[in-house]
Amino acid sequence: MGIIVNKLHVGIFIFDEVEVLDFAGPFEVFSRTRLTPGVDSRRSEDAAPFRVFTVAAHARSVTATGGLRIVPDYDFAMAPPIDLLIVPGGFGTRPLLKDSAVLEWIRRAAVSARRVASVCTGALVLAQAGLLAGRRATTHWGALDLLANLDRSVQVESTRRVVDDGVVTSAGVSAGIDMALELVEDLCGREVADDTARYMEYSRVPVGAMSSRPGG
Amino acid sequence: MGIIVNKLHVGIFIFDEVEVLDFAGPFEVFSRTRLTPGVDSRRSEDAAPFRVFTVAAHARSVTATGGLRIVPDYDFAMAPPIDLLIVPGGFGTRPLLKDSAVLEWIRRAAVSARRVASVCTGALVLAQAGLLAGRRATTHWGALDLLANLDRSVQVESTRRVVDDGVVTSAGVSAGIDMALELVEDLCGREVADDTARYMEYSRVPVGAMSSRPGG
Repeated sequence: MGIIVNKLHVGIFIFDEVEVLDFAGPFEVFSRTRLTPGVDSRRSEDAAPFRVFTVAAHARSVTATGGLRIVPDYDFAMAPPIDLLIVPGGFGTRPLLKDSAVLEWIRRAAVSARRVASVCTGALVLAQAGLLAGRRATTHWGALDLLANLDRSVQVESTRRVVDDGVVTSAGVSAGIDMALELVEDLCGREVADDTARYMEYSRVPVGAMSSRPGG
Repeated sequence: MGIIVNKLHVGIFIFDEVEVLDFAGPFEVFSRTRLTPGVDSRRSEDAAPFRVFTVAAHARSVTATGGLRIVPDYDFAMAPPIDLLIVPGGFGTRPLLKDSAVLEWIRRAAVSARRVASVCTGALVLAQAGLLAGRRATTHWGALDLLANLDRSVQVESTRRVVDDGVVTSAGVSAGIDMALELVEDLCGREVADDTARYMEYSRVPVGAMSSRPGG
C-alpha cells in the first residue's frame, strides 16, 4: 500500500457546548483509519484515507460540554472543501437552531459534500437546516420528540442506532463511533472498518441495535 | 438531590500525540455523570459529583493524534489537587518515558490522589514512573510486551479490559470509557454508572472481556 495522496476531507463542525464524545468519537475513527492493518501503519499518515479537521463559526477556541477547550482548525471563511460533513450534538445545538449563519453554512457545506452525518442532537441542526425533510432519521433518545416537532416530514426512527437515508443520523453520544465506523465501511470496506475498531479495542454495536436505550 | 459542593477533582493529563479517545472517553464519562438520573440533570453542574479538568506540562495548546488541538486548563505548576488522576495513552507516551519532569509530576500527583488510572499506553508512563511495580496491569494489545519489558515486576494481564490492582489500568482506546464507568460505579454506585452509560447510549463492556482483542 503506497502513500495515499488524495485523502477525503472530513470536516467536523464544533461549537460551544458541543458534547465531547459526539465529536471526539468520529474524530478518533476517521483520523485513525488506515488502509494497512495493524498498529505500525498508525505511526504515519501515509495509509490514511481521510484528512480530518474541525471547523467552527469563528477562529476563537470552542468550549465543549464539561469545559474542554478546543482550538478549531478553521473558521467558516477559511474551511477547505468538505467531503464528509459531521455535525455532532450537545446542549449547544439549541441556540444553533436560530443561528442563520450556522444553518446557512451547513446547507452550503452539505451541497458539496459527498456524505452528511450527525451524531446525537446534531440531527436537530440538520433538521432545522432542512436537510432531513422527508427522510428517516434518529437522534438522542431524549430528543426524539423534539426532532419530530422541528420537521413533521421527518420519519423519526426510535429503535435504530444509525439511520442512513441519504443523510446519516445516529443515536446519542457513543453512537457516533458506530456511525463513523459504518461510513468507513461504506467507503473503504468491512476489513478496514473492523481493523480500525480492533485498533481502538471497540466492539462494534449493530446499527439496528437499541439495547442501550431506556427500556431497550 | 441538592447541589453537590465538594466535587471530586478528576485531573486528566494531556500531552502532544495523546490519543483523542483515550482522554475524551473518560472526560465524557466523568464530566457527564450526575447523581440524579435522566437528561435534565445534565443541564447544570448541580448534581455532578466530579469536577473534570485537563493538565499539561506547559500552558500552551496540546496537539493530540490526528491534529486535534486542546487548550489545557492547567499546567503542572498551577494544577489544583487531584483526587482521580487519569493518564491516557497514544504514541506521544514514548518520549514521556524519558521525560523526568513528567514522571516526577505523575509520581507526586499519584501520592496525593485517591485513585490513579491509565488508558491504553498510559500504562507505560505509570510503569516508568514506578507506579505499577509488583502489580497486575494491562495496556493496548500492541504494547503488552513493551509494558512487560519496562518493569519486569509487573504482572501483565492480556485478557482483561480493565485491571484494578490498587492502580487501575485499561486496554486500548475505547476501554477508557469502561474504566471510567467502573470508577464511577466504585465511587457512586451501580445505578449512577449505568445511568451515565444510558445517557451516552453506551453498552458497557464487561471489564473481564477480551472480545475486541485480536484473536479474542
